This record gives sequence, structure tokens and C-alpha cells, in this order.
Amino acid sequence: MAEEKGFPPLKNDRLLRAARGEPVDRVPVWVMRQAGRYLPEFREVRAQHDFFSMCRSPEIACQVTLQPLDRFPLDAAIIFSDILVVPQALGMEVQMKPGEGPVFPSPLQGPEDLAQLCGPGVACPKLQYVFDAITLTRHRLAGRAPLIGFCGAPWTIMAYMIEGKGSKTMSNAKCWLYRYPEDSHRLLKIITDTTVAYLVGQVKAGAQLLQVFESHAEHLDLGLFEEFALPYLKRICDEVKDQVATLGLPDIPMIVFPKGGHYALSQLGRLRYEVVGVDWTVEPTVARQLVGPDKTLQGNLDPCALYADPKAIDEAVKDMVDKFGRDKYIANLGHGMYPDMDPQSLAAFVTAVHKHTTKS
Amino acid sequence: MAEEKGFPPLKNDRLLRAARGEPVDRVPVWVMRQAGRYLPEFREVRAQHDFFSMCRSPEIACQVTLQPLDRFPLDAAIIFSDILVVPQALGMEVQMKPGEGPVFPSPLQGPEDLAQLCGPGVACPKLQYVFDAITLTRHRLAGRAPLIGFCGAPWTIMAYMIEGKGSKTMSNAKCWLYRYPEDSHRLLKIITDTTVAYLVGQVKAGAQLLQVFESHAEHLDLGLFEEFALPYLKRICDEVKDQVATLGLPDIPMIVFPKGGHYALSQLGRLRYEVVGVDWTVEPTVARQLVGPDKTLQGNLDPCALYADPKAIDEAVKDMVDKFGRDKYIANLGHGMYPDMDPQSLAAFVTAVHKHTTKS
Repeated sequence: MAEEKGFPPLKNDRLLRAARGEPVDRVPVWVMRQAGRYLPEFREVRAQHDFFSMCRSPEIACQVTLQPLDRFPLDAAIIFSDILVVPQALGMEVQMKPGEGPVFPSPLQGPEDLAQLCGPGVACPKLQYVFDAITLTRHRLAGRAPLIGFCGAPWTIMAYMIEGKGSKTMSNAKCWLYRYPEDSHRLLKIITDTTVAYLVGQVKAGAQLLQVFESHAEHLDLGLFEEFALPYLKRICDEVKDQVATLGLPDIPMIVFPKGGHYALSQLGRLRYEVVGVDWTVEPTVARQLVGPDKTLQGNLDPCALYADPKAIDEAVKDMVDKFGRDKYIANLGHGMYPDMDPQSLAAFVTAVHKHTTKS
Repeated sequence: MAEEKGFPPLKNDRLLRAARGEPVDRVPVWVMRQAGRYLPEFREVRAQHDFFSMCRSPEIACQVTLQPLDRFPLDAAIIFSDILVVPQALGMEVQMKPGEGPVFPSPLQGPEDLAQLCGPGVACPKLQYVFDAITLTRHRLAGRAPLIGFCGAPWTIMAYMIEGKGSKTMSNAKCWLYRYPEDSHRLLKIITDTTVAYLVGQVKAGAQLLQVFESHAEHLDLGLFEEFALPYLKRICDEVKDQVATLGLPDIPMIVFPKGGHYALSQLGRLRYEVVGVDWTVEPTVARQLVGPDKTLQGNLDPCALYADPKAIDEAVKDMVDKFGRDKYIANLGHGMYPDMDPQSLAAFVTAVHKHTTKS
């Protein structure tokens, strides 16, 4: 139980309040991939360790998780990890290749390969290092900001497991959806079962908010999304919330972020996720209209806007918060930080959110 | 002038009628990349010639353009070529690398590189081989179906010229938009000027419909699109139509296809393009609502639906045409054919369009 771990009291609950739709003194701000290669102090650590070794070391994961908070007045930390630790735990090998991204040397070739995957009872204990990193980080954070845990959504993970690497079309993974719909559901169920256990484990370890990344929503259409993505996103939210309640732990807010999923925002707005994240292609007013008035929205400045000068960043942030409004809103980028970005640009982004949303 | 070239009379004007919003006996159908590697007879030709040599040979370009029409009762031919012939004509080297796609060995590094690019007066004559291929194909088509010409939209071409190859984020090209907005406009103007001359040249050579591919719309947001894409798409349509009229040639319909540009459909619906193409992420009813009642819509089955069996393809097509309706509509995929697709699946697609849209 979180309290039993003796975590330091939270001194900044702005993010949690905004996620629950409660009033805040100013809009909370964090950014995806805020612990990453754009920070020289991150690159220094990364130079000495391979990517997944960093994930597997609670000490290192904690260290890099805190790096952006030492630089910028962010309203959240997000645990340093990767969505692909789940397929690793399911029994697949994943390597991080410099300049190329994640690669599975032996991706799933066909439905017969599903027999090799293990169930949540075997997979989840392998992820103990993530839980340990979360617990350690909660302590070291000293209540400065809440700690976000996360996972990939089942369709997004499935697509990686079949493609084995990045793909412009995801045509191999999508081929499964059309040709082996039952086996696809079987795979999505395997991923979902482990993901639920994994997220509950993160909450038990000390995560105070959870984000589910549906990074490959752009490859689906509404019909495929409703059949192969939405039911699993729903199960994850429902089951995590139910199991957390059963464990006697306090409910924690959950964010769903469907990158490229503009077409499914109204459907996602009907799930129990408190927050819906949107990418930069969705106009804030359109997002609000589709998601409905009750949810909190998160997003969505084009990350590349951070290539602009500080004055232009300030103007872009003002425009963004004017459109989203100051309530039920979490300021973020529409995607993660890129490695070639200047940390000063993120400083300008955070400063601008403060400047334009602080209630007098 | 088209008539002076003595082209055979058009026996199937279904596509042109639908593009202009006129009634048709059934919905016209063609698919993007219908002349491509999924056809064994295409691969046979490709095995003997490199990609751009095929584009540069009117005889070979004509041959592969006609291949899908010999197999399927399609309502259009689209000239075999590539959107990157324009940056080639502007003075850049482009290679087609197997399994990787197009690569620019020397992409634009910064605004100083713009001085190397030539103007439309130098660039356009270099594209004579495309005009020759179009004229030859119009003759060989023997009026079976109209011939579509095409080009890439300026932002899409600019992104390739800067990235030098495929990119998940297009962050180098987008960096220009934020850091060098004036130089970006200068580059976009160079591309636009040549593109207008190129399309007018295609019409003079015999193209009966033109499609402009904004394949990288997904990387922009509405603000960037309105500043860096829309004005050039507008100029292309306005200037091509005006110049064609000045030349005393009949007006020809134009299609704009913004892949990933769901957020800009209402803006595009206000330009003079007769047809707006949509990708599979846009629900047909949403597309109609955004584009407005006057335009013809084109699209949008998920190409991967062709991995399904013929019965499922038939059902997917029925669902699609039921949603789009039978008027002001051109059936197509939401993107091009993929190399690993079975020609029989395209046959099933075309058959299903016939079956579900023929007026009794």
C-alpha cells in the first residue's frame, strides 16, 4: 500500500487535480519523453549503458526520471521505461538499435507463434524492476510532483510484436487483423491481461497517475479501432480501477493517448479514463467537442514548435491554452521530445504555460 | 492541343462525370498505385530497369500504366511516374533504393542550398519525358478510360528535399517551417512555380484529370497547414485552371488528396478542386460534413482490407459505398496498393464496387 511505503507527502497535486477536473491555480505541465536524449545529462548516462539496462536498473531509471525535474518546474515526473518491456516480459527479445529504434530479432511470424508467449503470472514478476524503480523514485521525488506510470496499448504492442521494427504502413500487423481476426484477439487478450497486472503493480509500487499510449492508432480506421483497440483500452481502464479498489488503494487518474486517433475521440470520451491526450493534428476546440465536456484534455503543441525561438514558443503556447481553456486541461506536447531539441526550448514552453495560465 | 493530337474518342467518361458531380450509371473506381509491384507483369519489367529509368522511358511508362487496365475493368489509368521527378528536375539527385524507397544523397542542408535549384523555365523542359509518356498512353489507351496525371504538393515535396528519405517525424523539414519561415516560403514557391508549369504541360500532353498528392499532411497541424500548404495548393489549382483556359483547352477536373490531413478538410473544400480524396482514418460521413455537399469525394478503403478474403472485401466495399453514397463519389483505397498484395484482391474490390453501385 502506498502509505505503508512511507512516501513523502505530495507538495504539488496540480496534475492530479486537473486530471480529476478539479480547479487549479494554474494549468499543470509536463511533456512526453521529458527524460530523454535532448538532455546532455541523460546522454551522459546513456553513453555508459544500453537502453534496456537503464530501464532495468531502478537506480539509473530513477536518476534519469528526476533529471528534467531538476531543470524545469514540471508538474509531473514520468518513470523512465519503455512500452516494449511488456513484450520482453511476454518472452520476446527486443533490442534498442541506435538511430533505428527498437528491433525484435524474431518478430511474430504467424498465429502459431502465440504459443511461445507466457501469461501474466509469469510475465508480470519479470517487470519487478519497473516497480522497484517507481518505488525508489517516489521516495527520491520527495513529493515535488506526482509520478506517472505508463504502458503501451494492446494494439500498439501487438503491431510492434509483428512488425519487429518501425513501419510506415504496419501492413504486416494489419494483415493479422484482416486475415486472423480470432488470433489477433487472442494476442490482444494476452497483452491486455499482462498490461492490467503490470499497471496494478505500478500503482502498488507508487505510481500516482497512469498513461496508456495508443501510439499506432493512426494505422487503424474506426471499424478496426472499435473491434481491435477500444475494447482492450476499456478493459484496461475498468480492470485496473476495479483491482486497485479491491486492493483498498485510492483510485488514481488514467490518461489514454491515441496518437493519430482523431477519428475515435468521441468513443474514447465514453470510457472511464479521466484524461484524453490529443496529438497536434487535432484542434483543441475539435477535441473538446468530440471528447465531451466532462473529461480533462491533455496536449498538444507540435513538438517541432520547440525548434522556434522563445518568443514564437510563447505565442504558440498562448494560442494553445486560449483554445483549450484553463480548466480540465493538462499542457503537454502532441508527442515526445526529439533528441536534437534544445533544453532551453522546453524551459520556454514551461515558462509560457505558467505565464499564460496562472490565475491572479 | 488535345484534339489536335488526334486522340481516340473516350468511351468511358464515368470518372470525369463523377468528378464534376454529374450523374453516373455506377460509381467509377480506380486505385492509387494500381500500376505497381503487386502485379507480376510489373515486377517483370521492373527487374530489368531501375525505377526512374522506367519513368523516363515513355514506352515503358506507357506499358506499365496499361497493365492494370488489361486485368481489371478500371475507370481510369494513372500515368506511371513519381512525385519526386519534380525535385529531380529542380536539380536534385534522387535514387530509388530497394526496400528503402527514395533517397536523396544530398538533401537540402539549409536555406543557402536554395540557390542551387533551378526555376520552372529550366526544370519543366526536363520533364518532357512525362509529357511524352502521357501522349503515348492516351493513344494506346484507345479511349478505354481517362488518363490521370499527378504531382506532389509543395509541402510534401519540400519535406522530401530536406529529409532526403522517409522519416517518422519529418522533424528536419518541420524545423525549417519554424526556424526559416521565409526561406520555407521561398522553397515552396520554387516548387509551386514548377509544379504549375508541370501540370499544365501534362494537360497539354493529354492528361484528362489531375491529382495533387499532399502525402505529408499528417505531419502538419492546422496552423502550419494554413500557412505552408493551403496557399500553395490553392495557387496550383487556380493557376493550372486559369492557364489551361488561356490556352483554349477544356477545363479538367482536379483532385487534392491530403493524406493524414483530416484537420484541413473543410479548408480544402473551399478551393476549386472538384474532388477531395480522403484516407481511411476519415469516416465517409465526417468527410462529407467537413468538405461540404458540392465536392466529389474519393476514397477510402484501408488498403490492408485487401488482405482479407473476397467475401470480407465485398462487405467492406458495401459498407464504404453505403456511407459515401452513389453520387459525387469515386471509389478508391485510402492509400496505394502495397507490393505484397494479391491482384485477385483488387479484382474483388473492383467487382464489389460494380455490384454495390450499379443503378438498375
